Amino acid sequence: MPRESEIISKIRHRARKSNNVIVGIGDDAAVLRTSDGKDLVACCDLMVEGVHFSRAWAPPKLIGRKALAVTLSDIAAMGAVPRFALISVALPGECSSEYVDEMFEGILEMADSRGVSVVGGDTSSSPDSLFIDTSVIGECERGRAVTRSGARVGDMIYVSGSLGASALGLKLLEGGFRLDVSKEASDPAQQQALLKHLAPDAQLKLGRAIGEARLATAMIDISDGLSTDLSHILAESDCGAIIRADAIPIAQCLFSLASVSDHLQLAVNGGEEYELLFTAGPDRQQQLAELAEALDVSLSAIGQIVEKKGLQLERNSVLESLDPCGYEHLI
Amino acid sequence: MPRESEIISKIRHRARKSNNVIVGIGDDAAVLRTSDGKDLVACCDLMVEGVHFSRAWAPPKLIGRKALAVTLSDIAAMGAVPRFALISVALPGECSSEYVDEMFEGILEMADSRGVSVVGGDTSSSPDSLFIDTSVIGECERGRAVTRSGARVGDMIYVSGSLGASALGLKLLEGGFRLDVSKEASDPAQQQALLKHLAPDAQLKLGRAIGEARLATAMIDISDGLSTDLSHILAESDCGAIIRADAIPIAQCLFSLASVSDHLQLAVNGGEEYELLFTAGPDRQQQLAELAEALDVSLSAIGQIVEKKGLQLERNSVLESLDPCGYEHLI
Repeated sequence: MPRESEIISKIRHRARKSNNVIVGIGDDAAVLRTSDGKDLVACCDLMVEGVHFSRAWAPPKLIGRKALAVTLSDIAAMGAVPRFALISVALPGECSSEYVDEMFEGILEMADSRGVSVVGGDTSSSPDSLFIDTSVIGECERGRAVTRSGARVGDMIYVSGSLGASALGLKLLEGGFRLDVSKEASDPAQQQALLKHLAPDAQLKLGRAIGEARLATAMIDISDGLSTDLSHILAESDCGAIIRADAIPIAQCLFSLASVSDHLQLAVNGGEEYELLFTAGPDRQQQLAELAEALDVSLSAIGQIVEKKGLQLERNSVLESLDPCGYEHLI
Repeated sequence: MPRESEIISKIRHRARKSNNVIVGIGDDAAVLRTSDGKDLVACCDLMVEGVHFSRAWAPPKLIGRKALAVTLSDIAAMGAVPRFALISVALPGECSSEYVDEMFEGILEMADSRGVSVVGGDTSSSPDSLFIDTSVIGECERGRAVTRSGARVGDMIYVSGSLGASALGLKLLEGGFRLDVSKEASDPAQQQALLKHLAPDAQLKLGRAIGEARLATAMIDISDGLSTDLSHILAESDCGAIIRADAIPIAQCLFSLASVSDHLQLAVNGGEEYELLFTAGPDRQQQLAELAEALDVSLSAIGQIVEKKGLQLERNSVLESLDPCGYEHLI
């Protein structure tokens, strides 16, 4: 059970240095220098043990890694570049120094790999559960942040990567399966699903490129599930959408681990994918195809923005209403 | 037990609008516009039920108010102006909608009164305790942030306001005393101590004025106690200090509620005061006196920065070593 001063001292020496960090960890507040003429973006994401994760499911490094990745994903969804992070943790008494070190190593490795400086935070004991709140400040060209409110009738709807693996990974964890760290004799499909859930990545390069080239009219990251997150875009943009069942990219691991009848449900309603969901004018198809190839990411056009409110699913040439059934924490 | 979408919807409509908030609550991240040529300051503070507060001690409005005030105090200690806040809360199941509304009302009232826009956040359920993490972004003139590291030998040490009331308030709360909301027949000294602990204010005007006029060489807010926080300045500035016992401003309520032998202990080691502690060149005395009068705050010169490392207390013309005995959470 490390003291606050020990934690701060370690992170202070370990954290990435940057010319933009005038004062980092160790003062009342960090002093930061951003580029003149740019907009700032800022957000935070809270991970609570017993609600968002279980310590039994993952080593502390992956818990730390994910805590920052999910917030970086929000920055990606704005088409912005993350610059600085603040980390607040509340630690149960049984967390050893080694545990806390590893968790912060996961946070700091993720930060380093994305050019993000951890510039401050707060630590506390916790009477019960482990809490990690990460706040990230980023920047983008003035006026180029991609919000949820710009989708227009006729826009195409795109999603990056494939869907369903994270929800399947969660099911596997709940069923007692664990990440095989030995990497021997492990089922690759199972590992893919578990890793998608436990070690998600933020689509920062894609988000930034989309923002800089103004390719999207609206964008969000899939944290609550495609149906729920698309509904957020529709609500903010005051329009409706039709998505095609056969166009939704199903994660490879579902084909060997989930029954066919569950594929669509997992892909449409499964949360914590951290893929980007965005709308773009039909004239952007060629540019988006080139961008996907350049960045080596897959992009699927899954439907269209329409005037009629609500979200509809086209399956076997039949339109059905699709309710946002993704995950929302009942609090 | 309100849903996340209900909380967000309410705060979104209630939160202060500002020309600098291009996109506020309700997107993946807030989009903010700060002034070109300024430095940003950013920090966060975590309040955990059972560690930092008890729900039995204060109405939710004061809990929310304090959660933001303590972070604003860090911004004050940098000599900066707070602009934007992100709020993360984890709510136990038994928190009603009314409870959550009141808590956010406390946060938003504090934000409004200090010109701060709440621009985002996150909510979650909590298996056990209530957690509130507030992150604040502020700004100051380039290069004018007041850090902990600039104190020089010969500087005078100042503290704003008076000390000891918050620690006394905590003792009273632990002893079963409560804030008298009826305001009838209540002991004014008791109320003063309880309010200092439960509803502290951030010395934003003073901090900003000190920063803008470059009056201080180093500054910190007293959250862990004078002895501990002054030691932070000494460690960062690589120097020592002598403070005079008879110069330390004792809070009025201590004279009627605490035995004389406890006064110094409460004032020197009591935490959560949120007064400003700073060092300034001896040539700044006149300017500081004028500033104190203009802002109607009291400033006490309590000692001097010396070359000899460590913190010493001069009492009855005798120097004794003073260990930093303020509060540090054992985590």
